[in-house]
Amino acid sequence: MKIAIIGSGSWGSAMAKLLSINGHNVKIWTTDKNVYNNILNGENPTYLPGISLPKSIKPMFDLDKTVEDVDIIVLAIPSQAMREVVAKIKNRNAIFVSLAKGLEIKTGKLMNEIIKDELGNVKYCALSGPSHAEEVARDIPTSIVASGEKKVVEIIQKEFSNVSFRVYTNEDLKGVELCGAVKNVYAIASGVIDGIGGWDNTKAALITRSLVEISRFVEALGGKKETIMGLAGIGDLIVTCTSQHSRNRHVGEFIGKGYSLENILNDLKMVAEGVYTAKALYNNFKKEQIEMPIAEKVYKVLYEKINPKEAIEDLMNRKLKSEN
Amino acid sequence: MKIAIIGSGSWGSAMAKLLSINGHNVKIWTTDKNVYNNILNGENPTYLPGISLPKSIKPMFDLDKTVEDVDIIVLAIPSQAMREVVAKIKNRNAIFVSLAKGLEIKTGKLMNEIIKDELGNVKYCALSGPSHAEEVARDIPTSIVASGEKKVVEIIQKEFSNVSFRVYTNEDLKGVELCGAVKNVYAIASGVIDGIGGWDNTKAALITRSLVEISRFVEALGGKKETIMGLAGIGDLIVTCTSQHSRNRHVGEFIGKGYSLENILNDLKMVAEGVYTAKALYNNFKKEQIEMPIAEKVYKVLYEKINPKEAIEDLMNRKLKSEN
Repeated sequence: MKIAIIGSGSWGSAMAKLLSINGHNVKIWTTDKNVYNNILNGENPTYLPGISLPKSIKPMFDLDKTVEDVDIIVLAIPSQAMREVVAKIKNRNAIFVSLAKGLEIKTGKLMNEIIKDELGNVKYCALSGPSHAEEVARDIPTSIVASGEKKVVEIIQKEFSNVSFRVYTNEDLKGVELCGAVKNVYAIASGVIDGIGGWDNTKAALITRSLVEISRFVEALGGKKETIMGLAGIGDLIVTCTSQHSRNRHVGEFIGKGYSLENILNDLKMVAEGVYTAKALYNNFKKEQIEMPIAEKVYKVLYEKINPKEAIEDLMNRKLKSEN
Repeated sequence: MKIAIIGSGSWGSAMAKLLSINGHNVKIWTTDKNVYNNILNGENPTYLPGISLPKSIKPMFDLDKTVEDVDIIVLAIPSQAMREVVAKIKNRNAIFVSLAKGLEIKTGKLMNEIIKDELGNVKYCALSGPSHAEEVARDIPTSIVASGEKKVVEIIQKEFSNVSFRVYTNEDLKGVELCGAVKNVYAIASGVIDGIGGWDNTKAALITRSLVEISRFVEALGGKKETIMGLAGIGDLIVTCTSQHSRNRHVGEFIGKGYSLENILNDLKMVAEGVYTAKALYNNFKKEQIEMPIAEKVYKVLYEKINPKEAIEDLMNRKLKSEN
């Protein structure tokens, strides 16, 4: 198949490698001259150092030519840039595969809703689950979920799968995208605990309580319980809260160590989605009146500068009660 | 209150410290002369190095005198030793608090069932959840579940809690003990992945699928879904699959690196419950005809010497399908 990858960060590059190895004809769109030349030379050291990229991957500057006449368009761009970029895409016949996980701050919308706003009823699939790009690029066994309409996701399952990359299907698109978006907020909370002391007991309790909050939120908005219990829910939550590769966990870790958000974001070459999602989520659960104490503390640590250690202590010192 | 701790390993010692600091009168039973003298000197370096133990903790050799006239008896012994030890306890009026997590190999029974066999209808509480002793002993924020009859667990909640140790209650004793027992088997599987390559994506997928198996098993035997989703279920599963302190994960890690089970167990000073539980669980789910492919692979890696890397690959290469 002919595939266009929109975005040349770590996920875009790893996907380009995987799909090229799977035998597809792959173009990758970038706006960065260095990245363009590096991909031509078989590596993207800025975002995916040490990984050989097949020479058949074709870097592109021209967005129109990138998406022209392709069967699949993979959107590997940050969620806050999604609307602006997809608005420029003229191809309406391809399957659109989103790798972005987040809520748009100004509207609170999910990626599938942004695509619908801008492109109408195109064929759409969200790819989600525990899948750090650095590991996918190294053929480390990864299981992921393709979510959307049955006949669309079955195509993606077939074309994207290989021996180390297993694609399951899941038709609960809303649940999959909601889980993918909110987990980054909890990864920041988890990172704070790592930054304060690397406490395993505390972190496991936090992840457990995070899952309770995620269930409340996702189910209230129409996602399914089974999705929360699956790869896009618990699976992705665990990896993003525990992995060394997780940028959101990393942001939390530095906050836990006392650095300011401004300094952390300046030092980080990539986008930490959770920082933006924390704000969109806060607006959302306040409006819907859903109790989410951990997400609320993350918002207040990031945007109201409350002390992260006190935030953890506050969460720990709520009234003793029954678990249920 | 007057409290007897039976067992002087890391959990017993950490509990002795916590309960002594909470103001209780604590005796701790040991059969080891070195440990006896070390506790008198304010440290148990064999099992809990670097932790100061209050001098008010009284080490004891005589089991009868240890449990005589106490209000609470904390059982901090391996699950395979539980029956033999409790059979010797004469006090039937105390509350029995079990810290052991496992299934008795020869009967497949839970700790509460062993206690009932040996002591009849005594007051009983299981303490479970993400709670590595090394962290509890250092006042690292820990949340745990006390499970049993309401009026019993409310006493334990009140007497065991402090600012860094939060005790929730949960009346689903069967679910709590089943979750606590089986999670150690999955910690071994998780450790195998660490030993082979430290793969975060793979491990998150494994933990997600483990939870599906645990749900099947625990619900089939009468435990509640809410328990599986709580601290004793997911919470304990996460900590035991990811923590550096987890002995079961550690056993799996060395298996993944190619060491034999015999050598690992010889080197390990403590008991890795999952090694025994894997066998008891295998007998159990075969008898009940519950599909548990990960637990089955762990059993076969441990007892039939199948190659751990091939076991992981087999699990990854099952037929592609829908997630649900």
